[in-house]
Amino acid sequence: MTDSAETTLNGISAEQAAVEEDLTRRVLASFDNAPDPRLRTLMQALTRHLHAFIREVRLTEDEWNKAIEFLTGAGHITDEKRQEFVLLSDVLGASMMTIAVNNQAYKGATEATVFGPFFTEDAPEIPSGGDIAGGAAGQPCWVEGTVTGTEGNPVPNARIEVWEADEDGFYDVQYTDGRTAGRAHLFSDAGGRYAFWGLTPTPYPIPHDGPVGKMLEAVHRSPVRASHLHFMVTAPGKRTLVTHIFVEGDPQIEIGDSVFGVKDSLIKKFDQQAPGTPAPDGRDLGNQAWARTRFDIVLAPAGS
Amino acid sequence: MTDSAETTLNGISAEQAAVEEDLTRRVLASFDNAPDPRLRTLMQALTRHLHAFIREVRLTEDEWNKAIEFLTGAGHITDEKRQEFVLLSDVLGASMMTIAVNNQAYKGATEATVFGPFFTEDAPEIPSGGDIAGGAAGQPCWVEGTVTGTEGNPVPNARIEVWEADEDGFYDVQYTDGRTAGRAHLFSDAGGRYAFWGLTPTPYPIPHDGPVGKMLEAVHRSPVRASHLHFMVTAPGKRTLVTHIFVEGDPQIEIGDSVFGVKDSLIKKFDQQAPGTPAPDGRDLGNQAWARTRFDIVLAPAGS
Repeated sequence: MTDSAETTLNGISAEQAAVEEDLTRRVLASFDNAPDPRLRTLMQALTRHLHAFIREVRLTEDEWNKAIEFLTGAGHITDEKRQEFVLLSDVLGASMMTIAVNNQAYKGATEATVFGPFFTEDAPEIPSGGDIAGGAAGQPCWVEGTVTGTEGNPVPNARIEVWEADEDGFYDVQYTDGRTAGRAHLFSDAGGRYAFWGLTPTPYPIPHDGPVGKMLEAVHRSPVRASHLHFMVTAPGKRTLVTHIFVEGDPQIEIGDSVFGVKDSLIKKFDQQAPGTPAPDGRDLGNQAWARTRFDIVLAPAGS
Repeated sequence: MTDSAETTLNGISAEQAAVEEDLTRRVLASFDNAPDPRLRTLMQALTRHLHAFIREVRLTEDEWNKAIEFLTGAGHITDEKRQEFVLLSDVLGASMMTIAVNNQAYKGATEATVFGPFFTEDAPEIPSGGDIAGGAAGQPCWVEGTVTGTEGNPVPNARIEVWEADEDGFYDVQYTDGRTAGRAHLFSDAGGRYAFWGLTPTPYPIPHDGPVGKMLEAVHRSPVRASHLHFMVTAPGKRTLVTHIFVEGDPQIEIGDSVFGVKDSLIKKFDQQAPGTPAPDGRDLGNQAWARTRFDIVLAPAGS
């Protein structure tokens, strides 16, 4: 549907349309004196789209009240550890749209996806081939790949932050015991190569005991995120890449990732390895099955 | 500016536009199974307008963060007595647009305006010609008029709720001493007439020590409301009227009412009366100046 079709307000008299348009005009004009031109642009565009929404759906006063109650509930459940407005933005695809707008496709560069609320600044450094688990429960998974530029040139010494949930679906910061687990950073080597042991990602729901969870339930949407492993990759002269890799065959990809983070190019094969299969680095995995995957990272130039 | 012009995204490649449009399509589809068709309509329209806004302004990640912080701050200042989300809706003209959509112009019926947060259910009844002040400070003001239908027929026994701020700009409920002042209800007589003593309205700011106030300051907008007196009028077979009257000559009308409540038809002459001028009901006002105004109320039929 195009925007022009949306604002064809059937059944609204010309007189009524004039009243509504005059109101929008007056609200837009109220921002004319904003000294910061960017803020003026943002507030006027917000006003136009908000008014167009109310006019298009002919929002009832009861629905307006429910919206106020929803926002109030979201505000009251939000604290230092819980961010309901980010969840709201995520489940409406607004977070992904912001990422799309700010991380435009550049030649063959790896695509970005949502940052999520679970990154921390202080994850420990591990050597190439080290283990990020730090005691987090889950199936060991060997992850390897390269970091290159879009011309195929290796990027040595790129800083690679990785973080993920444990097999119970929780990040370390969601536990109250202060643990650091399932996260680390490492650097690509002189040839741009990297490798580490992580955990095979498993699906988990976003926090869904608040207003956003109730909304998802009312519209019959799953709160579950497709299984994923987070990456943030930085290197001098390159655009910072915030992304995930997803697990090929995870049924949640078909059901729908609750925050719309999945992109086809980010779905990777995680090859299951039978117990006893020798590990690439000779690690003794005992009787455990394990998995391996490959993620070759291509960084766009800075400023692209 | 038309909606179609807004979505002409200059400088965005076709490939990038396709990525963004595909995301919107996926988010819209996620609501396809909502069992309540009205909720589906609302969520899909919200998604379309929200995505169109982000795409049009090319929202930066920093701006997105500021928006999340703004909503979080609004949530945290909101409590039983303070409703920052209603203020936000008010200053963006979203409240007035909702009222416009739900109270369409009907022949010569009196126009509606914002309800505001200061109505209470339990205001005392006064007889015709009684005083609503209840000790609230301010200049006495005689208010009189009629309640009729759109054909000019008197509406007897209409319930007229009136409420207003005192001369310091505060409603009774904003004081912590539990007073009831500056509010009452009365009924029109057999000829549809009503009259009461109120206070000459004075301007006051909406609460502006929170995120909404900071936003208004940043865009150089006044938080002050044009001086007004609230009415809610109900009668069997008539559409409930929620409105104000405004004071002709109040400079805030030109500066701009902070919630866009002013309509030309609601601006009334408040005639100043010199001390000693006899009151219409013989009341002894001593050495006080007073004012008088007339507000003839026309109710639309219920369901119009």
